[in-house]
Amino acid sequence: MKKLVLLGATGSIGEQTLEILAKKDDWSLLAASCCSDIEGLLEIINRFQPKYAAAISEEKAHSLEKRAKIDNLEVLAGEPGYNRLAGLAEADLVINAIMGAAGLKPTLKALRSGQRLGLANKESLVTGGSLISQAADKKDAELLPVDSEHNAIFQLLEGKNSGEVRRLVLTASGGPFHGYSRSQLADVDVAEALDHPNWDMGSKITIDSATLMNKGLEVIEARWLFDFNYDKIDVMVHPESIVHSLIELTDNTFQAELGAPDMKKPIEYVISYPDRSESSSDFDLFGRELSFKKPDRSTFPCLDLAYESGRREKGYPVVLNAANEMAVAAFLDENLNFMRIPAVIETMLAEHDPVDLKTAGEILELDRQVRQEAREVIANC
Amino acid sequence: MKKLVLLGATGSIGEQTLEILAKKDDWSLLAASCCSDIEGLLEIINRFQPKYAAAISEEKAHSLEKRAKIDNLEVLAGEPGYNRLAGLAEADLVINAIMGAAGLKPTLKALRSGQRLGLANKESLVTGGSLISQAADKKDAELLPVDSEHNAIFQLLEGKNSGEVRRLVLTASGGPFHGYSRSQLADVDVAEALDHPNWDMGSKITIDSATLMNKGLEVIEARWLFDFNYDKIDVMVHPESIVHSLIELTDNTFQAELGAPDMKKPIEYVISYPDRSESSSDFDLFGRELSFKKPDRSTFPCLDLAYESGRREKGYPVVLNAANEMAVAAFLDENLNFMRIPAVIETMLAEHDPVDLKTAGEILELDRQVRQEAREVIANC
Repeated sequence: MKKLVLLGATGSIGEQTLEILAKKDDWSLLAASCCSDIEGLLEIINRFQPKYAAAISEEKAHSLEKRAKIDNLEVLAGEPGYNRLAGLAEADLVINAIMGAAGLKPTLKALRSGQRLGLANKESLVTGGSLISQAADKKDAELLPVDSEHNAIFQLLEGKNSGEVRRLVLTASGGPFHGYSRSQLADVDVAEALDHPNWDMGSKITIDSATLMNKGLEVIEARWLFDFNYDKIDVMVHPESIVHSLIELTDNTFQAELGAPDMKKPIEYVISYPDRSESSSDFDLFGRELSFKKPDRSTFPCLDLAYESGRREKGYPVVLNAANEMAVAAFLDENLNFMRIPAVIETMLAEHDPVDLKTAGEILELDRQVRQEAREVIANC
Repeated sequence: MKKLVLLGATGSIGEQTLEILAKKDDWSLLAASCCSDIEGLLEIINRFQPKYAAAISEEKAHSLEKRAKIDNLEVLAGEPGYNRLAGLAEADLVINAIMGAAGLKPTLKALRSGQRLGLANKESLVTGGSLISQAADKKDAELLPVDSEHNAIFQLLEGKNSGEVRRLVLTASGGPFHGYSRSQLADVDVAEALDHPNWDMGSKITIDSATLMNKGLEVIEARWLFDFNYDKIDVMVHPESIVHSLIELTDNTFQAELGAPDMKKPIEYVISYPDRSESSSDFDLFGRELSFKKPDRSTFPCLDLAYESGRREKGYPVVLNAANEMAVAAFLDENLNFMRIPAVIETMLAEHDPVDLKTAGEILELDRQVRQEAREVIANC
């Protein structure tokens, strides 16, 4: 029986991972964590009977322990708890589906413990890409991307020399506002922004998809996952979300990964890796039309803000990511206009001149600081 | 300096191969052959200065020898000549771009000599697939497909286990008559049939593309090249010819190879293999729309005739191929209506009950016999 550690079990990726796990006879859940949704985690614990669980605080952990209906459950709390789960030696695979910067330390812990890691927490790579790639290299740990785009590129690069690849091309659905002008964007509300045409995802990432920041963060992710510089990473709007990404080879031919826009596919790939699962689904291409366009970088400036932050390295991507998380949260709370999201980020980037960050502690300290400052900037918007 | 043997140098593939070769400092032409176009071959000889040449007959070989402006050219004649070139030990690569069944023996000779073979002669595999795959296996010879579809699949299968592949999907442009009804097809003439929307190819293969027989022959080719049974080989009409083929994996995801519809790409791939060339071309997907449809199997019955012949094995594909070559030649000579091409093939298939063919000689004898009989059938059409 193979054993899975699932961090961020109660979010959208966590939920889909568990749906897959429930159908697998050869896998069990070794550990699961949540942030504050202990009701959700309780259900998971009662259903999947893991040996370990963790929640954000001592208080929530205690409540979990009292209410869980299984014996011998070890319940842990907070960052030390998450890290302990990430490093469990009995695990065959750790999936990190924590949301936001809180995912960084567990990512590092898993890699430094030599775990095979399925990474759905893109903030880890955006904020700590350099530390993560060092940690993975040092332990020769397997880092498998769960994001559909990076999972596609990971699959396409298998068996290739990086020398024969000219360019990585991340596809973007363009989100619900693809084709909108700046004036049309001025009035969009939360419900419209959450109405993603293709993908069923959490609300933060859905807004990021609407601003193209999601693609910008993915560009930074790709830089660290695949060790390609930014000039060799491109973005293509593909509204149908059937082509999950492409690589261009040096002979000017392309290879693409295609399929249903269904997060279960990359999750399934990561769980089954290095084997490939048998699926009974029957998605097909007959009758489909696929289109490819350039992204509108002036109407959706978040994409170039991400490229620019990525290229400047140091702590810039940390500032970008923290400012974006705060701006998106404010938009979701109806405290910020959609068009002001990039403005907040730009202000924060202009106000910071970060140095090289050498530890996760330094990264998280900068992250905390930016969030605090962003709160003020947003209040004044 | 690497050395190329080019069989069928004066045809469309031969010509494009030489264009590529002319730009490569590290390759030279060791040998070239033609069928009857000795004017064309003379030009090639004078330009590329090979050590060997071959033409269809003693007479043509003699004429070549007298008129070639280079010293020390060894000129050979007929089938023994082609076979000698195919087996030249000095060669780094043999490309077989001979048209029709005449390509079979040189294919076998090259593989039995352990050559790396770039195969553009699809009739070899259609008529002698079993012999060819035995020969390649025995000598562990590398068989690289030049056809864009098979070249795409070859690339996509690299590094994969055949167990993770659910299906090969060959794309078809649909040819100039895609979407036509049977009544619209009744009056089409040679010029219309030769007006292929995407690919610049020889006239026989262009007609095969218009009848979908080209795709049918490619299905049989794929069966032998990749050792997949017919139930796992499918055809998808893709009028834009940008996706050159796909594979479907067991998890119901797809991988596709894409690029300009330009035969030079697969030829270049074969010459550079196992490295990948650097191209200065800049084909891109921005602004493109790609569509995928089911082939119209009732209006274009050649596709199913090919599947059926392939499944019945034995000599059926030989009958199919010979009858098709005769019918297409008659159509090109304006001696047969377009709609009668499948009818001729069906008649020939119905009249034959071929046995297993164990040698190239038996294959070619059946081929000769079918051609002779087809002549009569066509005359009575």
